[in-house]
Amino acid sequence: MRRLRLTVAYDGTPYHGLQAQEGLPTVQGEITAAVAKHLGSPPAGWAACGRTDAGVHAHAMVVHVDHESPMPLGKIKSGLNWHLPDTVRITQVAHMEGDFHARFSATRRAYEYLVYHRPVASPLWAGRAHWVKYPMDVEAMRRCAALLPGERDFSAFRTSACQAKSPVVRLTKFNIRRHGSLLRFQVEGVTFLHNMVRIMVGTLIDVGRGKIPEHALPDIITRGDRVQAGITLPPHGLYFARATYPDHLQPIEVY
Amino acid sequence: MRRLRLTVAYDGTPYHGLQAQEGLPTVQGEITAAVAKHLGSPPAGWAACGRTDAGVHAHAMVVHVDHESPMPLGKIKSGLNWHLPDTVRITQVAHMEGDFHARFSATRRAYEYLVYHRPVASPLWAGRAHWVKYPMDVEAMRRCAALLPGERDFSAFRTSACQAKSPVVRLTKFNIRRHGSLLRFQVEGVTFLHNMVRIMVGTLIDVGRGKIPEHALPDIITRGDRVQAGITLPPHGLYFARATYPDHLQPIEVY
Repeated sequence: MRRLRLTVAYDGTPYHGLQAQEGLPTVQGEITAAVAKHLGSPPAGWAACGRTDAGVHAHAMVVHVDHESPMPLGKIKSGLNWHLPDTVRITQVAHMEGDFHARFSATRRAYEYLVYHRPVASPLWAGRAHWVKYPMDVEAMRRCAALLPGERDFSAFRTSACQAKSPVVRLTKFNIRRHGSLLRFQVEGVTFLHNMVRIMVGTLIDVGRGKIPEHALPDIITRGDRVQAGITLPPHGLYFARATYPDHLQPIEVY
Repeated sequence: MRRLRLTVAYDGTPYHGLQAQEGLPTVQGEITAAVAKHLGSPPAGWAACGRTDAGVHAHAMVVHVDHESPMPLGKIKSGLNWHLPDTVRITQVAHMEGDFHARFSATRRAYEYLVYHRPVASPLWAGRAHWVKYPMDVEAMRRCAALLPGERDFSAFRTSACQAKSPVVRLTKFNIRRHGSLLRFQVEGVTFLHNMVRIMVGTLIDVGRGKIPEHALPDIITRGDRVQAGITLPPHGLYFARATYPDHLQPIEVY
């Protein structure tokens, strides 16, 4: 039995998220079906670095699948991509030691949220970036974003449906970069609460628009009151960007 | 009667090009229908800066429409966008003097061709960039691209269906920029022959892959033999980027 690490890019638009759900199209469902078709049986084990909700995209999600097939990695990669729809691509396959776990071994997770910031929406960024038409004070947003990293109670930025045991997580990075009409919110942390990125960016946009005063943000963070924070932005601007693992978990073979 | 200059962004995927064709979905058809619905009658006149083929996109196509409606420009813009599908957006409306002509007044047209250059395709750039999986010598492509600008016979890079009277046009710029996995081919000229950008970029990719030797390019340009040049790349990587007009053609009002 080999543990295979798959790096996966996907367009989340047609899916009810990454995780398998009975009777609904999901990214896990697509990968499991492709493994079954190409290797003759479904994975004996499965784990993903993170969950992504319906409509959320990924540049490089990391999952592992356990399978007894001895097929060369290059053939696994090309065969899975042959069976998968164009909306899901395996960009790398690696053979890992059994102590690698796509979820539990991960030390950092990075997300990106894209905002298209113009008075008129873009047909070319539809489904890929959230459109904001209002003027925004990006410098005020950057000052507030700088307050967020740290290990703290993120209850203000957590959906009521969140199932995490503790609201205390560690956020390690929050940058806002502008590329022409696009604002890229780059976020990294150890773990994330449910909808945390979409609520944090929604709150910063409300600061940028002046709906939430800049001076209110420290209090919003400290009080942990979800109602005071901004709205949960739509999923189509969110991307799982990458995962980080400890250096000692190197692949035996990679293709 | 006012002459209105419309700046238009569109996702070309669902259209048989910009120009109206009986019974087929086109960008002109969408705009004409939106004008008729919002202003009560179709445009009395119409011209576009350039033609784009089926599947080609635009960041800022320029068209003009003549209409007798006295409606304020802001209301025209918002109303047209209300009637148009999400695949077409009017980003600016300007009231021009009658001597402005979207096609005949333009002094420069700029296109961009996007290539996604990775061993595995990207679900997130599908329909927005042409995928090339082969290794490419981008520096050799840049050296060849530098040979192209100038006023010359571009017969080697012209489809047999091209209706231009002369194959001699003036190309003013050809840059290749890399942004991570994306190659952006930035091209500017006075006028273009049919499929010229898609054939030029296709030829440079063949040079990058080694299918066409770098030293052959001067001869390909000079002999003007279409057969020696590269293939016509697919339309979904091509964008009409912008048009340039003389400084004296300033808008009377702009919104």
